[in-house]
Amino acid sequence: MTPHPVPETGAAVKAADRAHVFHSWSAQELIDPLAVAGAQGSYFWDYDGNRYLDFTSGLVYTNIGYQHPKVVAAIQEQAARMTTFAPAFAVEARSEAARLIAERTPGDLDRIFFTNGGADAVEHAVRMARLHTGRPKVLSAYRSYHGGTQQAVNLTGDPRRWPSDSGTAGVVHFWAPYLYRSRFYAETEEQECARALEHLETTIAFEGPATVAAIVLETIPGTAGIMVPPSGYLAGVRALCDTYGIVFVLDEVMAGFGRTGEWFAADLFDVVPDLMTFAKGVNSGYVPLGGVAISPAVAETFARRPYPGGLTYSGHPLACAAAVATIRAMDEEGVVAHAARLGAEVVGPALRELAGRHPSVGEVRGTGMFWAVELVRDRETREPLVPYNASGEAAAPTAAFAAAAKAHGVWPFVNMNRTHVVPPCNITEPELKEGLAALDAALTAADEYTV
Amino acid sequence: MTPHPVPETGAAVKAADRAHVFHSWSAQELIDPLAVAGAQGSYFWDYDGNRYLDFTSGLVYTNIGYQHPKVVAAIQEQAARMTTFAPAFAVEARSEAARLIAERTPGDLDRIFFTNGGADAVEHAVRMARLHTGRPKVLSAYRSYHGGTQQAVNLTGDPRRWPSDSGTAGVVHFWAPYLYRSRFYAETEEQECARALEHLETTIAFEGPATVAAIVLETIPGTAGIMVPPSGYLAGVRALCDTYGIVFVLDEVMAGFGRTGEWFAADLFDVVPDLMTFAKGVNSGYVPLGGVAISPAVAETFARRPYPGGLTYSGHPLACAAAVATIRAMDEEGVVAHAARLGAEVVGPALRELAGRHPSVGEVRGTGMFWAVELVRDRETREPLVPYNASGEAAAPTAAFAAAAKAHGVWPFVNMNRTHVVPPCNITEPELKEGLAALDAALTAADEYTV
Ligand SMILES: Cc1ncc(COP(=O)(O)O)c(C=O)c1O
Ligand SMILES: Cc1ncc(COP(=O)(O)O)c(C=O)c1O
Repeated sequence: MTPHPVPETGAAVKAADRAHVFHSWSAQELIDPLAVAGAQGSYFWDYDGNRYLDFTSGLVYTNIGYQHPKVVAAIQEQAARMTTFAPAFAVEARSEAARLIAERTPGDLDRIFFTNGGADAVEHAVRMARLHTGRPKVLSAYRSYHGGTQQAVNLTGDPRRWPSDSGTAGVVHFWAPYLYRSRFYAETEEQECARALEHLETTIAFEGPATVAAIVLETIPGTAGIMVPPSGYLAGVRALCDTYGIVFVLDEVMAGFGRTGEWFAADLFDVVPDLMTFAKGVNSGYVPLGGVAISPAVAETFARRPYPGGLTYSGHPLACAAAVATIRAMDEEGVVAHAARLGAEVVGPALRELAGRHPSVGEVRGTGMFWAVELVRDRETREPLVPYNASGEAAAPTAAFAAAAKAHGVWPFVNMNRTHVVPPCNITEPELKEGLAALDAALTAADEYTV
Repeated sequence: MTPHPVPETGAAVKAADRAHVFHSWSAQELIDPLAVAGAQGSYFWDYDGNRYLDFTSGLVYTNIGYQHPKVVAAIQEQAARMTTFAPAFAVEARSEAARLIAERTPGDLDRIFFTNGGADAVEHAVRMARLHTGRPKVLSAYRSYHGGTQQAVNLTGDPRRWPSDSGTAGVVHFWAPYLYRSRFYAETEEQECARALEHLETTIAFEGPATVAAIVLETIPGTAGIMVPPSGYLAGVRALCDTYGIVFVLDEVMAGFGRTGEWFAADLFDVVPDLMTFAKGVNSGYVPLGGVAISPAVAETFARRPYPGGLTYSGHPLACAAAVATIRAMDEEGVVAHAARLGAEVVGPALRELAGRHPSVGEVRGTGMFWAVELVRDRETREPLVPYNASGEAAAPTAAFAAAAKAHGVWPFVNMNRTHVVPPCNITEPELKEGLAALDAALTAADEYTV
């Protein structure tokens, strides 16, 4: 941490970045990355003395905020003891992380395959499902994000899939429930739920049930818009999977580890998948780590027959030690319950109050520290504030919203026509209120673009 | 580090591992992972007081050995300053790592896209090549390994590809040079080289040059057998790529960062690819990190059009700080030149001497700290000591070899009918000689299975 960040250092950092760093999801010459000097708790700051409240948790992964002292200390200790070791051995941090995760996962998911992040967790979950069932196809939702590698990006339902779409056979997209923009002409949650399940079952029937290896769903779709599914939907999907012998994969890379006010979002719906992917919150991204939690039935498939997949850093000791410390700190500090309480008592009411005053707010929805505010040009028609996948000029309204939020000291999460309120799960109540007040001002900028 | 490892701790570590850790590439009930208590330099030890010289560098990635004090200190410092930050920002460790890597990469490869490991580096390199050329197919070699995610495992030429083979369209395998088991009926290196290039060019012609996006090759194939290509082969592939507008991707995940006695194996052959993947040695795997080094021409494709790929931990600060410290330590300590010298003066002569005395040795080949000893039942027919992809009883001869090496205090790398001599690049000369002496004893066990 640099208490007095030096602007010249910032300039050098920026220059080397522009010369040598190739950035994710970006046109390299059209971006202008902010040079960040330091971060602590829910804040980060640049080299010019500007400090921001991070309403994004990075990419929704620093669930315990930046530089949590217990996790920093655990990383330092593990670095001194055993920084790395190959995956074929038993090592303490790896064993302990697997045990602590397995203790918290829903139901009987008690074996952990570790990866480096979310995308490779999804890649391996799909591999396991295909080999477990002997079937080729995988169903996933149009409004979804599952990662940037070839198989994961093909499962993804958002435009990030388009440029890579030809590469992977066997992925079929369907529509999941989303009452505000129902694809099923539904008017109630019950209708949306019933029709979404009917749609899924028909899709399975026409694809051929015996060809479907897995259904992959984010428990609560994250980047795609935090559409909390109607009660009964996930249980319905579970039942369809049981009926047709399909592996049910829940992707909790973003929703897991406290984000929703439960250890896992699946707990909100009392549903147990066959495979569950995780990453991000498992150690707040302090060291790259992801994984797949595996049911006994799927594990049995690979009990005496090798699982044909792996990676050099599976169960990396430094990453696992960070997970152990993160999970323990979350327990000791009651972070999960804190997120649930602040979500229900502070964020929900505040966003609903903002929705009442700002014509640009179409809908607010969420739970825990996982909320979406959907921005519209017109509340009647629900026309989005910016078109689907807008960029450049077409995205001016959301750019104006983001600029206003930053001017008020909050770094906002913006995707399509939405802002998400996804700060660290251990944000304090005063910090949260400070951020929500900035959103109020930023929504005033968005209101300018309504009809 | 536990100077006096406690057996009871080892038992607990092992029990939690068996209950909860799902291991890479394994039949979960048929493995018996050794519980490792600590590691330092070129050695590691278990909880029962057994110490092993690590002739594997983990999975050929701890190029600077275990617990290098400078890199451990750098990780501890970076953890205290800025453990993690999202990829869309400029941060010091990320900028500096990119700069130091770009300084060392061959030719004009001066932009770095960071990933978490080798497989996702390969995934993204292929994505870049396909979008840069607008072509679908990718050519790779039968004797190769490129990673465990869907696209990477399909590029892989070894049996690890088989169970996942249907998943990715557009991969075509060809034969690369390997004089000892020539697919081209060649009798000299020159013949092997010319015929391998002829084979590749014919394959391109019959696949349709305008359909081929990339040729992906390990500069020196690693896991597949450390087949150092004949001089002229890679330059020939470079020329074919230029002729047909194909992106040349060199995978240096294993061969890079000092392993061959050069910063990159490409330097041995004076060849510059369009894309080069790396991981492992970049920071000796102390924190998961990989990446793609990108030529100006490919970078230009994504200058004003977004690159459609990314990951949460791209350019992870802790991983990048470990890379910065690793590269600096390797410079300060002359690790690359050390590896070159010990390879040429110690390993090469010692292995050739062993080959003279042990009938089980068919061929030795390599460079730097990157050597293969090919084991045969019969030197005349070159029949491998164990059949291709052998397991169980059929693999008894290599299992006997490995057991003998361990009994002599060396943990050997064994793959198919080969052992690789791939210790840390900064192993000392006495340690290396100790290990080579143990190999001598282990080869005596292998000799039992010769005709
Ligand atoms: C639900 C979900 N799955 C998978 C991923 C991919 O994770 P990673 O970026 O670590 O590869 C993400 C990342 O945002 C995600 O939100
Ligand atoms: C040449 C090569 N490429 C790619 C990989 C995959 O790297 P990772 O295991 O980090 O995914 C490996 C791993 O051994 C490799 O040797």
